[in-house]
Amino acid sequence: MIKATTPLYAVIGDPIAHSLSPLMQNWFIQHFGLDAVYVAFRVCPTELKNAVQGMRALGIQGMNVTVPHKEAVTAWTDEYSSEVTLLGAANTLKNVDGKISAFVTDPYGFIESLSENSARFNQADVLLFGAGGAARSVCYALSRLSVNRIILHDIDDQKTESLLRLCRTNLGLTKTVALKSIADDMNDIIAATPIVINATAIGMHPQENQSVIENVRTINKGHFFYDLIYNPAKTRFLRMAEKAGAVVQSGLDMLIFQGLQSMRIWTGEELKLNHASMQELRTLLTHFLGNHE
Amino acid sequence: MIKATTPLYAVIGDPIAHSLSPLMQNWFIQHFGLDAVYVAFRVCPTELKNAVQGMRALGIQGMNVTVPHKEAVTAWTDEYSSEVTLLGAANTLKNVDGKISAFVTDPYGFIESLSENSARFNQADVLLFGAGGAARSVCYALSRLSVNRIILHDIDDQKTESLLRLCRTNLGLTKTVALKSIADDMNDIIAATPIVINATAIGMHPQENQSVIENVRTINKGHFFYDLIYNPAKTRFLRMAEKAGAVVQSGLDMLIFQGLQSMRIWTGEELKLNHASMQELRTLLTHFLGNHE
Repeated sequence: MIKATTPLYAVIGDPIAHSLSPLMQNWFIQHFGLDAVYVAFRVCPTELKNAVQGMRALGIQGMNVTVPHKEAVTAWTDEYSSEVTLLGAANTLKNVDGKISAFVTDPYGFIESLSENSARFNQADVLLFGAGGAARSVCYALSRLSVNRIILHDIDDQKTESLLRLCRTNLGLTKTVALKSIADDMNDIIAATPIVINATAIGMHPQENQSVIENVRTINKGHFFYDLIYNPAKTRFLRMAEKAGAVVQSGLDMLIFQGLQSMRIWTGEELKLNHASMQELRTLLTHFLGNHE
Repeated sequence: MIKATTPLYAVIGDPIAHSLSPLMQNWFIQHFGLDAVYVAFRVCPTELKNAVQGMRALGIQGMNVTVPHKEAVTAWTDEYSSEVTLLGAANTLKNVDGKISAFVTDPYGFIESLSENSARFNQADVLLFGAGGAARSVCYALSRLSVNRIILHDIDDQKTESLLRLCRTNLGLTKTVALKSIADDMNDIIAATPIVINATAIGMHPQENQSVIENVRTINKGHFFYDLIYNPAKTRFLRMAEKAGAVVQSGLDMLIFQGLQSMRIWTGEELKLNHASMQELRTLLTHFLGNHE
């Protein structure tokens, strides 16, 4: 029951109509018996400042921030977590008596999503496709997972250069290297690299027949392939890897855990999901996406 | 189920923690099967402008406005209904693509609350206690009910003078008069006046043993006593009148109908409550107030 004292949480973005966050966060609210309600606001870039001031004026206690505001929003908040300072982007705002703090929960979402697979990352080499915001969060997470070396590739040289610098200079990942192109030696690289991550939008619905790599013959059951995309539930990239025997994972659990981490930040409560609850939520979200595998 | 496209409505005020609006408006949403959610925001006077700009930036589609913002809010809206212009106050804002229109639904709430008793007002004399915002809305309603004459009383001479002017000059109630004090002739006045309305806060919880008038001996079963207060459900003013045989009414139905009128403005839908639904909602609100008669 919504009372006059019930806190409001929201997500802002543009577009926002297809966001899964209201569904997921209201599921958390109900599941954990929290007193709160969560809605979505479409905020265009020119209104971002007024939206954050409105958050303050109205006493909206928490906000998720999504595309295209994750970087720009940091100009209007009062405090930043160390991760936001490093990554230059935020996806979670918390309002305490008009003071707004910015957090980024994507790295935590990535790490928590790995579950028992996180052990694979210790001192491992990782091939990472993409150098945008999602890839930056993944690199932060990889630095916490004590990987040996990241091999980066993005078609945008400037973004690649920037992420390379972040890894080497700020994240302690001094052995990070960039691939200039997806070259003929991809078979050799993958043969030598046990973990392959896609943090690009290639293969995302509705371009489901695309993949960052094709016809790789060196994938085997020792590989772990991770795609941050959750729609479709299994991208062409993951289907290819799974066929060759690799362990694969979609972005659905990262979506869940980055959202859960936001709710933990807002409520200050240690919210845990057991296996059955995770499965229930995955089913709900997958159903909503219209992917019935 | 709240989706990314679900509209948000809200009430702003200060204080706001005891507002019945979230309970009532979410009951409407559920009862009429609307896709919406309604919350309360505590907004202090210095943040009112940012709150209205925030409404625009976030795309909050509707707001109720309560004390102390009903007058001040009209400075920040784009359009006004004729009633808002006349009364200088608004309790309902509607946001259409960033253009915010101001409405006041209190007069409609008063009229609709009268139900079959509205016929009593035609060409009748009315004794009205109070000259604040609520009394102004009542006078607007009385002008629509074609009363003969209003006899006003408020301890604040300036407010009384202002309302007298509104009635005579703008509302066509040219015979309106003001009582300087609640004089010894109250028995005579009430004997000659079939309708008596309290639009002051006197008798409101927790000062339940107060009443604007005491020891009136001329009340009879031809009288209609209306108290805008809904907490307690029956004020000392109404109990006195009821004991003498008068027909009495509390402010609960006005509260309900002013809120329903806001929801009609936001949704554009003709929302009607039948007798059983009204009774259900009254019970819910009374229960919430802790008044179990």
